[in-house]
Amino acid sequence: MSIETALMRLSDVLGDRLSRSKADLDHHGQSETHFAPAPPDGVAWPETTAEVAEIARICSEEGCPIIGWGAGTSLEGHALATEGGLTVDFGRMNRVLQVNAEDMDVVVQPGVTRRALNEELRATGLFFPVDPGADASLGGMAMTRASGTTAVRYGTMRDNVRALEVVLADGRVIRTGSRARKSSAGYDLTGLFVGSEGTLGLVTELTLRLYGQPEAITAAVCAFDEMGPAVDAVTETIQSGVPMARIEFIDAPTVRAVNVYSGLDLPEMPHLMVEFHGSETGAAEDAERFAEIAQDHGAKNFERATRTEDRTRLWRARHDAYWAILAAHPGRTGYVTDVCVPITALAEAVAETEADIAASGIPGPIAGHVGDGNFHSVLLVDPDNPAEHDIALELSHKMAERALRLGGTVTGEHGVGLGKRRYMAAEHGDGWAVMGDIKRALDPGNLMNPGKLVPGNQ
Amino acid sequence: MSIETALMRLSDVLGDRLSRSKADLDHHGQSETHFAPAPPDGVAWPETTAEVAEIARICSEEGCPIIGWGAGTSLEGHALATEGGLTVDFGRMNRVLQVNAEDMDVVVQPGVTRRALNEELRATGLFFPVDPGADASLGGMAMTRASGTTAVRYGTMRDNVRALEVVLADGRVIRTGSRARKSSAGYDLTGLFVGSEGTLGLVTELTLRLYGQPEAITAAVCAFDEMGPAVDAVTETIQSGVPMARIEFIDAPTVRAVNVYSGLDLPEMPHLMVEFHGSETGAAEDAERFAEIAQDHGAKNFERATRTEDRTRLWRARHDAYWAILAAHPGRTGYVTDVCVPITALAEAVAETEADIAASGIPGPIAGHVGDGNFHSVLLVDPDNPAEHDIALELSHKMAERALRLGGTVTGEHGVGLGKRRYMAAEHGDGWAVMGDIKRALDPGNLMNPGKLVPGNQ
Repeated sequence: MSIETALMRLSDVLGDRLSRSKADLDHHGQSETHFAPAPPDGVAWPETTAEVAEIARICSEEGCPIIGWGAGTSLEGHALATEGGLTVDFGRMNRVLQVNAEDMDVVVQPGVTRRALNEELRATGLFFPVDPGADASLGGMAMTRASGTTAVRYGTMRDNVRALEVVLADGRVIRTGSRARKSSAGYDLTGLFVGSEGTLGLVTELTLRLYGQPEAITAAVCAFDEMGPAVDAVTETIQSGVPMARIEFIDAPTVRAVNVYSGLDLPEMPHLMVEFHGSETGAAEDAERFAEIAQDHGAKNFERATRTEDRTRLWRARHDAYWAILAAHPGRTGYVTDVCVPITALAEAVAETEADIAASGIPGPIAGHVGDGNFHSVLLVDPDNPAEHDIALELSHKMAERALRLGGTVTGEHGVGLGKRRYMAAEHGDGWAVMGDIKRALDPGNLMNPGKLVPGNQ
Repeated sequence: MSIETALMRLSDVLGDRLSRSKADLDHHGQSETHFAPAPPDGVAWPETTAEVAEIARICSEEGCPIIGWGAGTSLEGHALATEGGLTVDFGRMNRVLQVNAEDMDVVVQPGVTRRALNEELRATGLFFPVDPGADASLGGMAMTRASGTTAVRYGTMRDNVRALEVVLADGRVIRTGSRARKSSAGYDLTGLFVGSEGTLGLVTELTLRLYGQPEAITAAVCAFDEMGPAVDAVTETIQSGVPMARIEFIDAPTVRAVNVYSGLDLPEMPHLMVEFHGSETGAAEDAERFAEIAQDHGAKNFERATRTEDRTRLWRARHDAYWAILAAHPGRTGYVTDVCVPITALAEAVAETEADIAASGIPGPIAGHVGDGNFHSVLLVDPDNPAEHDIALELSHKMAERALRLGGTVTGEHGVGLGKRRYMAAEHGDGWAVMGDIKRALDPGNLMNPGKLVPGNQ
């Protein structure tokens, strides 16, 4: 019983779809951010659920850890093989299996990315709204309970996964949920697996909610002298019931970076970027109501973008903000933070964070999905300067503790992975022990993404 | 170690808030529907979370089953003490603890009913939308993952509980979720407890999402010659993206009953009852678009109800349909069924059900939250005629099996309780065993509402 034996047996099953080449191990042993590389001992590319189940059975018999891999866009090191073992890359399970246009749902394999799905849906008049920026795989998005710019209107992966097929640690295959829009038939296993970060099983199929492409879309940007009034404008807009599809905050340093990277010419001031979906009249009315509220809070340079190309350019710029920020600071590495607080605590949380960063001596542009109370900073460190790493960790630590103090959560959308595990006890108390109990019940051998999310010493 | 000892110890803690009187036991030993009475050995009325935790500790030490009790409105016998033990009545934990109007959430104790909450919220301009008809307690609604007429717009309890305080079987108190609007910080324990029917713990506090009272509300009713075109009109309306707040189907026998019971004068034909929430213009436009679609499908007698009193009368009539149906069949008992299917399967599911009931020889009016694909029949039996009980069970059985065949679920909103446990294996396969594993992990002594939801022989 060993990882070696598991890989030998898997090689018989998968042939050249089981790799131990250094290049493949290295590729699957790194992450988008600052975590130390941790390559697996092997990488598998299954093509069917039956193969995934066989992989789980063999790994379970041989005591070999299993780590799922989607598109590798995690920001918290979720897929690092910190205890070695096998990475299961879902790149070949990337088919859209059913488009049920009339029921407004779709059945996909986990390796389909969100952009590929929306490409495939284009002709149907439907779309899948969850949009974390990166072209993540839908399996990975489910596993981290991803959200992004549109969550304020369409919810997160929690709200948009109807059903799952899951391979359990022992190789059993279960189906959770159904294509019905709601159910009261027992524990919400779908909801339990969404956000479980591969620690309870491997998702091999997802049924997702779709939405009608809106008849009309209006986007707008506006500038503010300071962050405070911008956040107040967000709060008031939410409370007034104006249905926003996106409402994003970017600070002046972020604006500077995206201007250069994406060729925009926004004034170098804090901005809100918003979007409204609805009928022609409805979207225009909503934009008008928002404009009034924003202007009451001192918004300037209010610009609408109704043409598709202008909107695309704007949101592409927002999505590329992380890369724009990195490009603006050559040679620096980003620590990407993520916290979420109640809306009324947002202004305080952002202001204190801004002050901490200003005092820290390292750059840290702030941007956020402020309609959810969720915001990020990209803390930029010189990778060769350990003191700066410590500063970034301390800033991130203060943000997490502040979020908890204000009644929020240490991660709104990036997940726990390696970076946020240290806060789980503080956020959940004995609830974290309960998560460990559930993990042990479903994965007694602690082979599914070990070392992540739940308490140690499983 | 015994139930007797548990009750003696509890009596020391609770004084006269621990009752063993026959009247109290009988009251808590019956349900709204056809299940045989099953009284507990004692009833407790705790007033604080600390008392509930003490109750759990004592019951855990003494091996005494614990059953939660809200308003007693369950339709599937959830709160029957089939293995004896202690019923914990949350009637004295009925305070609204915090109204966070700006964050649009509220913190309540589990015994607050949905009507009491909305009464308390009236002055804030906010409301809690989940509306199962009965004036259920919010704790009970969370435990059965309740929904009702407004789920098509506002979602079910799954979508509207942000956070919980839960007393576990061993007396530990945990908090799940937070007041942030979203989180990726670990397993969704809130979602796991919602719908767990008291089998994993006792909820002692709930944080619920609120919504702005709509600026304008328009309701309407229209009649159809047959059920088929009515369901088609629903399907087309949903697909067209018209945002409905409610869309309900009632068949001709239900119309007949509510006309008498609630003093309406609708033609005795299948009807749709709809409601739209929005701005003055928006709600009127939506109603207009619905009217066009409905009329394309042959809708007649289209009537708007814009005045508050007309709407209230209409929805009160819909909510009282169960009582109206019972009143129309004096001496008969109702078996209330509940299934939910994908929208495209709804017409088939309702038509086949209608035909089965017509052929069965017992009355069974049909009504449903058709925007969710969810419908019910009240199967009316002579309580003294065992053959009719068998017919009702067989009709209900066929509905459940049909729902599964069509890709749906055996219960859209009433929950598993005693009535639907026999279908759990068919609906969930090995997923049901996983539910049992989770139950064992959290309640190893099988004391929290034993005999419900999960597989037996715990």
